[in-house]
Amino acid sequence: MTSPVPISDRFALLLGLSLGFALSRRQSRLMTAESCTGGMISQWFTAIVCSTQWFDGAVVSYANVAKQHLLGVSSHSLEQGGAVSEVVARQMADGIRDQHCRLVTGSTTPLYGLSVTGIAGPQGGRPGKPVGLVRYGWSGPFGTDTQSREFGGVRADIQRQAAAWAMSGLFARLCRPAIG
Amino acid sequence: MTSPVPISDRFALLLGLSLGFALSRRQSRLMTAESCTGGMISQWFTAIVCSTQWFDGAVVSYANVAKQHLLGVSSHSLEQGGAVSEVVARQMADGIRDQHCRLVTGSTTPLYGLSVTGIAGPQGGRPGKPVGLVRYGWSGPFGTDTQSREFGGVRADIQRQAAAWAMSGLFARLCRPAIG
Repeated sequence: MTSPVPISDRFALLLGLSLGFALSRRQSRLMTAESCTGGMISQWFTAIVCSTQWFDGAVVSYANVAKQHLLGVSSHSLEQGGAVSEVVARQMADGIRDQHCRLVTGSTTPLYGLSVTGIAGPQGGRPGKPVGLVRYGWSGPFGTDTQSREFGGVRADIQRQAAAWAMSGLFARLCRPAIG
Repeated sequence: MTSPVPISDRFALLLGLSLGFALSRRQSRLMTAESCTGGMISQWFTAIVCSTQWFDGAVVSYANVAKQHLLGVSSHSLEQGGAVSEVVARQMADGIRDQHCRLVTGSTTPLYGLSVTGIAGPQGGRPGKPVGLVRYGWSGPFGTDTQSREFGGVRADIQRQAAAWAMSGLFARLCRPAIG
């Protein structure tokens, strides 16, 4: 098991501020779809004063039925790949962006969505899908990207690292030129 | 301004564990609709191992459009009472419970919903609606209850007190006999 990277509250705040600044500069807005982080990313964002200028909300789809009904994840993908798969992470990111598009219908604001689904443990690990495995989806004008990462530590460590990686991943993608 | 009541991480965990135990014993399940707490309640719940046994997820309706489209809050209520009103808190609590009913359709599991909408500050206060004002909705087999509270302190204090009060409010209501 890899050693956990400690994510302090101060580091999380700095990450949120950087992302907020990057989104604000681009007059863009964000929503998140969280499973194993359980709303941590959303909570880090809303700890920031004036985050309402770039953050619209989140869906914490902790249960699989919530992934299906609130984010449009297909039952086929959940059965085939399981909840912790890049296919599901992609559908979650696309799903939250679709919801966002419905919310701000008619606007030309660039919209971004991110998703996190993983195994925070201590239970739920199995061969090929160990505790600490996290799948990501980032959706935006650049298209949709997915990624997998494995984190070490106990449940709280995994959740904090997973949340921080989702945010820094979006930050990196914000610098890409838009497709289309 | 009243002095803030400090809510430690340990106290939050204890509150979450108590609520989880109470829900589990009743074979009940919960979803939350959060505005000013931004997912804090959801995050406190999902910090607990096995919270998947009684917690299904959350909608963080930070923007008003999210309250409307994800929770079914009426534009009329938002215009008349504003986002921080007991009418909106009631519609948020009913909205998340309705979503939950759609998720677990056909099940006889007792479902509970709670909602929080308030002014965490430091901006957004005005006469009659000061910074620190929080409106609550609790929805369950007992019906739907609303309440208003005012908290002191800075943004983080208000958010933590608001989250803790929402949880303890549900805990109290879980002990009530079901109506109907």
